[in-house]
Amino acid sequence: MGRASARATEPVVLGVDVGGTKVLAAEVDTAGRVLATAARSTPGRRVEVGLLEAALTEAVLEVADGRPIAAVGLAAAGFVDREGERVMFAPHLPWRGEAVRDRLAERWGTTVVLDNDANCAAHAEIAHGEAGGDALVITLGTGIGGAVVIGGRVHRGRNGMAGEFGHMQVVPDGLPCECGNRGCWEQYSSGNALTRFARERIGHERTSLERMCGGIPERLVGPMVTDAARDGDAVALQAFASVGDWLGVGIANLVAAFDPEVVVVGGGVSAADALLLDPARAALTRALVGASHRRVPPVRRARFGPEAGVVGGAVLARRAIVG
Amino acid sequence: MGRASARATEPVVLGVDVGGTKVLAAEVDTAGRVLATAARSTPGRRVEVGLLEAALTEAVLEVADGRPIAAVGLAAAGFVDREGERVMFAPHLPWRGEAVRDRLAERWGTTVVLDNDANCAAHAEIAHGEAGGDALVITLGTGIGGAVVIGGRVHRGRNGMAGEFGHMQVVPDGLPCECGNRGCWEQYSSGNALTRFARERIGHERTSLERMCGGIPERLVGPMVTDAARDGDAVALQAFASVGDWLGVGIANLVAAFDPEVVVVGGGVSAADALLLDPARAALTRALVGASHRRVPPVRRARFGPEAGVVGGAVLARRAIVG
Amino acid sequence: MGRASARATEPVVLGVDVGGTKVLAAEVDTAGRVLATAARSTPGRRVEVGLLEAALTEAVLEVADGRPIAAVGLAAAGFVDREGERVMFAPHLPWRGEAVRDRLAERWGTTVVLDNDANCAAHAEIAHGEAGGDALVITLGTGIGGAVVIGGRVHRGRNGMAGEFGHMQVVPDGLPCECGNRGCWEQYSSGNALTRFARERIGHERTSLERMCGGIPERLVGPMVTDAARDGDAVALQAFASVGDWLGVGIANLVAAFDPEVVVVGGGVSAADALLLDPARAALTRALVGASHRRVPPVRRARFGPEAGVVGGAVLARRAIVG
Amino acid sequence: MGRASARATEPVVLGVDVGGTKVLAAEVDTAGRVLATAARSTPGRRVEVGLLEAALTEAVLEVADGRPIAAVGLAAAGFVDREGERVMFAPHLPWRGEAVRDRLAERWGTTVVLDNDANCAAHAEIAHGEAGGDALVITLGTGIGGAVVIGGRVHRGRNGMAGEFGHMQVVPDGLPCECGNRGCWEQYSSGNALTRFARERIGHERTSLERMCGGIPERLVGPMVTDAARDGDAVALQAFASVGDWLGVGIANLVAAFDPEVVVVGGGVSAADALLLDPARAALTRALVGASHRRVPPVRRARFGPEAGVVGGAVLARRAIVG
Repeated sequence: MGRASARATEPVVLGVDVGGTKVLAAEVDTAGRVLATAARSTPGRRVEVGLLEAALTEAVLEVADGRPIAAVGLAAAGFVDREGERVMFAPHLPWRGEAVRDRLAERWGTTVVLDNDANCAAHAEIAHGEAGGDALVITLGTGIGGAVVIGGRVHRGRNGMAGEFGHMQVVPDGLPCECGNRGCWEQYSSGNALTRFARERIGHERTSLERMCGGIPERLVGPMVTDAARDGDAVALQAFASVGDWLGVGIANLVAAFDPEVVVVGGGVSAADALLLDPARAALTRALVGASHRRVPPVRRARFGPEAGVVGGAVLARRAIVG
Repeated sequence: MGRASARATEPVVLGVDVGGTKVLAAEVDTAGRVLATAARSTPGRRVEVGLLEAALTEAVLEVADGRPIAAVGLAAAGFVDREGERVMFAPHLPWRGEAVRDRLAERWGTTVVLDNDANCAAHAEIAHGEAGGDALVITLGTGIGGAVVIGGRVHRGRNGMAGEFGHMQVVPDGLPCECGNRGCWEQYSSGNALTRFARERIGHERTSLERMCGGIPERLVGPMVTDAARDGDAVALQAFASVGDWLGVGIANLVAAFDPEVVVVGGGVSAADALLLDPARAALTRALVGASHRRVPPVRRARFGPEAGVVGGAVLARRAIVG
Repeated sequence: MGRASARATEPVVLGVDVGGTKVLAAEVDTAGRVLATAARSTPGRRVEVGLLEAALTEAVLEVADGRPIAAVGLAAAGFVDREGERVMFAPHLPWRGEAVRDRLAERWGTTVVLDNDANCAAHAEIAHGEAGGDALVITLGTGIGGAVVIGGRVHRGRNGMAGEFGHMQVVPDGLPCECGNRGCWEQYSSGNALTRFARERIGHERTSLERMCGGIPERLVGPMVTDAARDGDAVALQAFASVGDWLGVGIANLVAAFDPEVVVVGGGVSAADALLLDPARAALTRALVGASHRRVPPVRRARFGPEAGVVGGAVLARRAIVG
Repeated sequence: MGRASARATEPVVLGVDVGGTKVLAAEVDTAGRVLATAARSTPGRRVEVGLLEAALTEAVLEVADGRPIAAVGLAAAGFVDREGERVMFAPHLPWRGEAVRDRLAERWGTTVVLDNDANCAAHAEIAHGEAGGDALVITLGTGIGGAVVIGGRVHRGRNGMAGEFGHMQVVPDGLPCECGNRGCWEQYSSGNALTRFARERIGHERTSLERMCGGIPERLVGPMVTDAARDGDAVALQAFASVGDWLGVGIANLVAAFDPEVVVVGGGVSAADALLLDPARAALTRALVGASHRRVPPVRRARFGPEAGVVGGAVLARRAIVG
């Protein structure tokens, strides 16, 4: 009861994750805890932007539940410009250079801030998780997202595009990438890389994955590989060993350039934890230049999982009004 | 005369480059101009450190020429610790974890500051050259040195080892590197890579390089390749095309991660200018993720050549006493 | 008139090329000259085999034109078993282990012999072209076909599958191939490789190819690249340089293993002649082991172009009845 | 006694292996059994050829022990010309184009035949071991030697240089090879590759190899890696997994080209047997084109170990006099 009356007067701070398949709005408290959520399906990339923004509005209003909204932080799966005003390009969303921030601020009558989802995940880890000081935050989902943290702040870069680690070339003339180049890191270390590795083995080696996907490689998804690996399936373990090894090699490249205090790995694949991170740590120690003359940074699993975007969005939102 | 009397009273600020073959001390003015220099041979890596420090002292005193020394900035070809106190490891110098900064400050009775040579080159470019704001500075000499510039400051990292770009792996199972790994970037894009590429062709293809080195590949050195390329020699041009292409691919990787405003390329190989930088720019535009959604950073030749270390050392020294 | 009456009594020897898009039947004389042809579209890979065999029969009867058929040699684009009885698998034809040879022999009332198209091309070159003694025959079409010639005979191997050069791995973790592996040679040196290389550059570099394909990379086909290269277009020339270089590297691998007297390159891409073969020869000389202790084999353009299959089929057919 | 009198009258057939460090002469019976041997150190590559030939003569006479010599077969570690008359080049022997065969035949007053050591190993396997019909024989020693067997005969090639499998390029821009190229197969799959792999890990990972070599990587030799792998050492097992995987990939390339009935692996490294051959078989099945449409050839360990050269030399010698 006390709570209900408090709710009517206390303004809420929201984070909203605008992903390729789902929109998730959440009320997040000052400790980074998610108090309430509302979700909608993402209308698709070829629809009018009005449809997407209507879905966002529904989710936001549902979570606010009649309370005043102090600020909203949007975490978008796409390129956000330097000023945090526009979504320049997003492979799975209809926004193309739209001034999203100001338009939604006007519509919702509140402060809105905007950044891409990987940077928001970094904000969540900086404020409430594992990424203090100088850090690299790497998000292993379908592909690789990332953020550079310097002095406790996210370095966004000249175009707001810093942290696009997934498209660093690691294999000359290697696997083709949707970006138009070949041999990008995320082709070797990501959720897609994990399932592709496992799918290529179906029908060639004895593996429990075959049964899981009914012998149809296309039906194989990441969590099946994780489950099989935990049951000791050799092919699934090789898939994690390969993806983890490439993860460590890429981290070694980034550490050679940045020399951070810590590396934080999040995203869906990181749920596999030691299956993924142990081979990554081994590869980092092997591949890092001058490993015997330095402190090799720890590779930690991110504190936040699927809610990283909304928590980080809320961190940004709260900072915008508190300063 | 006026000058002489002024000199007797005005304290000087010096930069000292402690390289693998040569020690160079210089008086540098506030505009980054070198006013006077003194050089000594580097005594070698297996000698006592006293020999090296004596050579440094001679060069410093010769340049000071009786005037008071306001501050000295040392640019060392090796790993310098986070605090700028010690040279932790230097492949061609005898220092191994020595507290060089304070020992020389006491010996010379003045303020001494210390950083590695690539960071000093970055300081020279920030203060007087091409590297403003957020920049990457890449030094192509025997290998690759580098520095990360964020907000006009050199980012040194947790161990003082940020900017070791040369040891990012670009070819899996590739050419072996002295660092113990395989496929490091500097094996494909550096002065050594340039001469190796050219040497491998001697005796296999018609090239004016053969005459230049008397048919003995080991006698082939970088400047010969530059000269031959300027004369249109096909093998020399291929060597620059290959090294320049790899330069651009590596820059694209770094730009994907940092998104800087500008990339500055210095070091001995950069004297070849367009021969090197044009293929690098083409490769950067080809390989950079999202090139059509962003401003591709310009790749500029560094303002400073062999004097980059002393100028940058002096910049650091002056900052230490002025603040 | 004399000819007409002669035709009525003289039995003809036919070659039939059963390709993925077209069936071509031809009367071929003892000198390897094509006297008459008839073509049909290939019905497709998912149709009943009866449809394909009906098309073959039509073409055969049209060429025979009422004359008795002494023998038919079939050149099939697929795997033919060791005994030359069956087409085991063909990616673009409906046959799957069918006893094609005997079934058609019965249907046509004549001797039928069967081999894959690359082996037939080799038979054409052995009998009437460039491949005497010990030779490698390489057919660059969409992919790479090949044949090993030892002592003037085609070496067919344990499964009839010798000569599958296109699927030798040349790039670890490289471009994916329809065969399920990565980095196969034909992904880097073939008609497909040529157009892919050129397509990747459309929109990134100034090239006359852009106009040719109306700016739509998918419309770009091989002959456009050949035309543009002959007009000096830089991107088209690079495409040939890349495909030709990879051709030479792969040939060097095969020559290291076989040490043949001659290498013969045919197939559609070989029409580009020096554009393709000059860089291949340079790469062969560079990459071949012990090149200074041996005679590097000449790389010759095949005598036969699109008619290689029917000529080779007829060679096989004639040999079957003459012995 | 009976034996002694028999020996005095029966002419013997000898095989002589002329290796880089040792000369081994042996009496071999018609079943391929070694009855007696004599060894000498190889005098070196920079000595006069007379010294080498004197050592050969000593070893031959010691084994003959006064009996008449019916024929001698020489197995030389080098390039032997097409006619089997000359050693054209041998990295560790002084012969450079010498007419070895006829000179030694005159000196010893008997029939002499000559081939390279890998071909002789193939002759041993054909006559008494595992290589019947169409086969590939691969000898994994310091590097990779090989032989192509077609119809039960060794295919020697235009220059007598067929079977140089070790210098097929498998990694573009890969590890440098003494042959002057990069990325040769033997850099990834051979005795040298095994020890290099293991040496690179010393000091980086916990391994019993460290103790075996006293922490000095250069002291690590192949048999230590085999012993450690048998004791379950993780680094040694990885070394065999890597070398074995590359062995299988290279075999898949050769099988795609030749389609042999069997692949026979000999040489010093093959003593590790399943440690080496099991990963090779797995990689062959994975990497071979059309594996589901064909019989994948078995990969068998060679019957003959260090005596393969002398046994094969004797096979050649006996054939020369018997026909």
